[in-house]
Amino acid sequence: MKQRLPGLVAALLLCALPAVAQDAAAPVETPAVAEAVSAEVAYIFNTLLFLIGGFLVMWMAAGFAMLEAGLVRSKNATTQLFKNIVLFAIAGIMYWLVGYNLMYPGDGWTVPGVIGQIFSPKTLDPAGAGEVSAGYSAGSDFFFQLMFCATTASIVSGTLAERVKLWPFMIFTVVLTGLIYPIEASWQWGGGFLSEMGFSDFAGSTLVHATGGFAALAGAIVLGARYGKYRADGRMQPMPGSNLALATLGTFILWLGWFGFNGASQLAIGSVNDAADVSRIFVNTNMAASAGAVAAVIATQLLYGKIDLTMVLNGALAGLVSITAEPLMPSILAAVLIGAVGGGLAVFVVPMLDRLKIDDVVGAIPVHLVAGVWGTMIVPATNPDTSFVTQATGILAIGAFTFVLSMILWTVLKMTVGIRVDREAEINGLDISEMGMEAYPDFVQAK
Amino acid sequence: MKQRLPGLVAALLLCALPAVAQDAAAPVETPAVAEAVSAEVAYIFNTLLFLIGGFLVMWMAAGFAMLEAGLVRSKNATTQLFKNIVLFAIAGIMYWLVGYNLMYPGDGWTVPGVIGQIFSPKTLDPAGAGEVSAGYSAGSDFFFQLMFCATTASIVSGTLAERVKLWPFMIFTVVLTGLIYPIEASWQWGGGFLSEMGFSDFAGSTLVHATGGFAALAGAIVLGARYGKYRADGRMQPMPGSNLALATLGTFILWLGWFGFNGASQLAIGSVNDAADVSRIFVNTNMAASAGAVAAVIATQLLYGKIDLTMVLNGALAGLVSITAEPLMPSILAAVLIGAVGGGLAVFVVPMLDRLKIDDVVGAIPVHLVAGVWGTMIVPATNPDTSFVTQATGILAIGAFTFVLSMILWTVLKMTVGIRVDREAEINGLDISEMGMEAYPDFVQAK
Amino acid sequence: MKQRLPGLVAALLLCALPAVAQDAAAPVETPAVAEAVSAEVAYIFNTLLFLIGGFLVMWMAAGFAMLEAGLVRSKNATTQLFKNIVLFAIAGIMYWLVGYNLMYPGDGWTVPGVIGQIFSPKTLDPAGAGEVSAGYSAGSDFFFQLMFCATTASIVSGTLAERVKLWPFMIFTVVLTGLIYPIEASWQWGGGFLSEMGFSDFAGSTLVHATGGFAALAGAIVLGARYGKYRADGRMQPMPGSNLALATLGTFILWLGWFGFNGASQLAIGSVNDAADVSRIFVNTNMAASAGAVAAVIATQLLYGKIDLTMVLNGALAGLVSITAEPLMPSILAAVLIGAVGGGLAVFVVPMLDRLKIDDVVGAIPVHLVAGVWGTMIVPATNPDTSFVTQATGILAIGAFTFVLSMILWTVLKMTVGIRVDREAEINGLDISEMGMEAYPDFVQAK
Repeated sequence: MKQRLPGLVAALLLCALPAVAQDAAAPVETPAVAEAVSAEVAYIFNTLLFLIGGFLVMWMAAGFAMLEAGLVRSKNATTQLFKNIVLFAIAGIMYWLVGYNLMYPGDGWTVPGVIGQIFSPKTLDPAGAGEVSAGYSAGSDFFFQLMFCATTASIVSGTLAERVKLWPFMIFTVVLTGLIYPIEASWQWGGGFLSEMGFSDFAGSTLVHATGGFAALAGAIVLGARYGKYRADGRMQPMPGSNLALATLGTFILWLGWFGFNGASQLAIGSVNDAADVSRIFVNTNMAASAGAVAAVIATQLLYGKIDLTMVLNGALAGLVSITAEPLMPSILAAVLIGAVGGGLAVFVVPMLDRLKIDDVVGAIPVHLVAGVWGTMIVPATNPDTSFVTQATGILAIGAFTFVLSMILWTVLKMTVGIRVDREAEINGLDISEMGMEAYPDFVQAK
Repeated sequence: MKQRLPGLVAALLLCALPAVAQDAAAPVETPAVAEAVSAEVAYIFNTLLFLIGGFLVMWMAAGFAMLEAGLVRSKNATTQLFKNIVLFAIAGIMYWLVGYNLMYPGDGWTVPGVIGQIFSPKTLDPAGAGEVSAGYSAGSDFFFQLMFCATTASIVSGTLAERVKLWPFMIFTVVLTGLIYPIEASWQWGGGFLSEMGFSDFAGSTLVHATGGFAALAGAIVLGARYGKYRADGRMQPMPGSNLALATLGTFILWLGWFGFNGASQLAIGSVNDAADVSRIFVNTNMAASAGAVAAVIATQLLYGKIDLTMVLNGALAGLVSITAEPLMPSILAAVLIGAVGGGLAVFVVPMLDRLKIDDVVGAIPVHLVAGVWGTMIVPATNPDTSFVTQATGILAIGAFTFVLSMILWTVLKMTVGIRVDREAEINGLDISEMGMEAYPDFVQAK
Repeated sequence: MKQRLPGLVAALLLCALPAVAQDAAAPVETPAVAEAVSAEVAYIFNTLLFLIGGFLVMWMAAGFAMLEAGLVRSKNATTQLFKNIVLFAIAGIMYWLVGYNLMYPGDGWTVPGVIGQIFSPKTLDPAGAGEVSAGYSAGSDFFFQLMFCATTASIVSGTLAERVKLWPFMIFTVVLTGLIYPIEASWQWGGGFLSEMGFSDFAGSTLVHATGGFAALAGAIVLGARYGKYRADGRMQPMPGSNLALATLGTFILWLGWFGFNGASQLAIGSVNDAADVSRIFVNTNMAASAGAVAAVIATQLLYGKIDLTMVLNGALAGLVSITAEPLMPSILAAVLIGAVGGGLAVFVVPMLDRLKIDDVVGAIPVHLVAGVWGTMIVPATNPDTSFVTQATGILAIGAFTFVLSMILWTVLKMTVGIRVDREAEINGLDISEMGMEAYPDFVQAK
């Protein structure tokens, strides 16, 4: 039975593709509507969408914090909590100082132009009459974009948990949020070559999630697995998460925040068509998450004979990542299939990573990298303006850039300051060795 | 002293009724206002209300998860967390596949029409000019209604905790969210006979909360109490919740989500009057919850000599359920009284259930069923367009339908696959026996 | 090194002042815009802002609950959770019964007028044509203002944790939310003498946060330190928080809620200028929090050689409090500097309080009182319409009023019912002695 499952999944995938492809044949262009919405009212609606979407995505930082603190062992929980709040703070500072202007270089698409952006922090002019034509307030856009930058950083921290040193992690976060993310995101959202090529990644399955996943993968390779994780006899030592209530809470937070992530990526709600589009995005986002969770329930029951809660949580998240590249065009059925495949993929990739001895503590690589690539590659099935070749090119460009730069940065950090705590510190837990502070000091710990 | 309390409460109730009834005499019809809001702008506002309300109600699923995970013993926490996330996922799938079209049959109010709906999943057409007249986007309505269906399912899981098998629970959830809830809800919100009769249940004290409560009650009866809960000598064994921080968090989440639950049930915020109405709903919702909590503080102090936190949490929730049937018409004073009585009821019903040996692990029956009935029955005191007879008829119809169908379904499941884990598995905890995964593996457990 | 740090901080402060002062020279008046937004549409937008802002600030009550439950020892967690939910409920009741009308006396600024307000609960008329001119619905305004009153009460509970009796705490909350807060807030927001004087405190660095801090300080002095906290040999006994995951979650919740706290304090989003202003407030709020957290990272690393997570959490919160007095006028750079100084101050004040043997369990005094004063005093650096003298006067008036009344009230409570549990009860924990209910009964506790 278990041997037949990968085949089953492949079959499911093959079934899914025509189903979503059929969908693409449906008339997706909406008839023009004469709208009685003034530019000023549309401006307020659009700004409100960015603000609401922004605070929902901000809330995802808390989701990552809870998910990761729940999936590490209790001796590393303080450290994981700290990394999640500090990376959010660093992302805010760096995206303001460097990232935003680098990501939207405007006319500055020259080498000196780009370098100049690095030294010009984002400023916000007081609102003026001229701004109405932009369609939304500059501040709300900056706020919303900042949260995407922070999300990219949140993804990395989970994979590297339980062994990475604090300060090198913070330095990596500075570079990721100040340079790596803004540069690759500018290729698409800053009007760069991917956007000109026709690459399509609505809210960032690749631009945000796979990017975080690539950076995490590079870190995991350079850092190595936790001591004792992969034993000499080839077997794997389970290191279960210490607080599944927190992990579940984190997943619910992320699910909630994703309505802002995908919904506000419509960038406008100031017209009837935009409002209807944002609504369909909310629906598809929810359905893909539901389907990802259900797929993981079925997959783990069949594969392991028992349902695995952490896999179900990751299944829901993988469903969310999968739909992020195109949450608008799919029918509900297509969204369900896209999410289900994403959720199933997350379940199957986890043991594959373990076979490669890549130690991803929270499963961020299956969820954000693998499902992110899946979601981006399936876009042409529902969006006729895209092609598999362009999508693959975009993933390759972003993946290569992020992965290579991350490898270099982690390697330089390793050779200079060192990125890993010593063996004794790791065994005692980073909370004592790195922070001198237990997360749960009143509770007697097992072993 | 303790003996006099039920009398005191009855007196309070009698005092409350005239106070809220007086309220009904106040002029509640608002003068007509010429509104300078175009149909398009109103459409966007209404859609936004559904989306915001929808994500707030989605967040309630996390609230139930935390509340229930906190109120079960730690050996059952993983299972409880799992049930809460999977039921939300199942509700999404089933409501799309079957529920929505069944709940709004339109012209299909015939037996073949209704059966036909079962095989037609909800689809969303791209927005078009014609849709503006609907007043809101179809997707936002579907999103909002889906969350109500999920809430009904969330209510059931807590009552049956610590002994129900996973797969039968999931099967029940499939039927509840795909058939039972959509059918009874269609009687009112789908334009069915209750709505024609003049039954009034604004956001679902009965349609959602009592329905969940009736389904939970049926399950609790068929399933039986936990081993050791009711001892041979007639005394009750306390089985305190393992994590009151989670339970409190869950209550705060539910309180927050309820602003969406009740507020967006106004179904419109695209006019001055609607905006003022939504605001009054927010106020009354908050006041009823506050009063329910305070009533539970006083009641437990008087009854038991000590304040009971879990009762206070349930008091707040009972206040919220109570005001849900009519959050708009009551004055603030009436909302306070309605909520206070609801909170007091929750406290008094808990020992009554125990005397009947109905083992409701989290108190969902007092909170959702009893307070739901109270809230629905008190509507005529503040809404002159309703009558006690009609309200009672609605409750009876919905209650009988839900309870009987649930009894049948639980009984069939019991006689076929079995719905209860064996004694040893229950004593060891469902986390080990059903899921093979502890919620808090690093922490030494008592006993 | 450590000795030089206060000097470094003073230098930083001196550097910060000119930087933010330069900012004040920038043209902050925006050109007039002819807006195509009707009064009705603006009314709906403004109402929506209050409702969204209100539910975000309501969510802060959960943030305080989690923060404080995480920072107390596990034997006091139930009590702390209870206090946080009951104070929120009490605030709702008292602000409705007394507070709101007392805070906005309208023409009633006479002694009999004010006394009359005490006996007239807030009522909400059904919306009518006349209300459009108010710009927003009365209910939404009441809902939003209520949440500010509740926040003030939330601040007090943390400082007094682990030793205060439940009922005296509740009585204090009744007076704080029914009288003290509404009276001092009326001086500014009710059109009183501070507002006429030109005092400026946008969202309440002083009116809410320092007020809560002054009430907490008075309580801490009258109550005394926890047994064993300050030892005879002059050393301090660390009493670390029992659950840093909850504390971090609470901080993220507060950070999220603060967008409502500051953003909706713009009081309007029904024009292009207001929408742009709210957006800039969101940005500055986020940047000040980020800077506060980063400042605390650096300060604790330098001071103690290790990063202290609870200090980083408090640093972020202090950054938020600091920007609350003026989140609109500062440039992003100024917001970063204001927040960083606030975060640094919080770190440095903690040991100063310990030297004074003022036992503030969660650090509410450094975060809310000290950073609140800092934020209020730095307003003139970015808002040319204010002066240091007026700001200082406002702080003194509010501080003296709140502190003196709180001292009297705590002292009267101490001499009558007693405000502190006895020594044995304190050692055993308030959860057992006051509530008879453990927060984590399944887990074996250390010691």
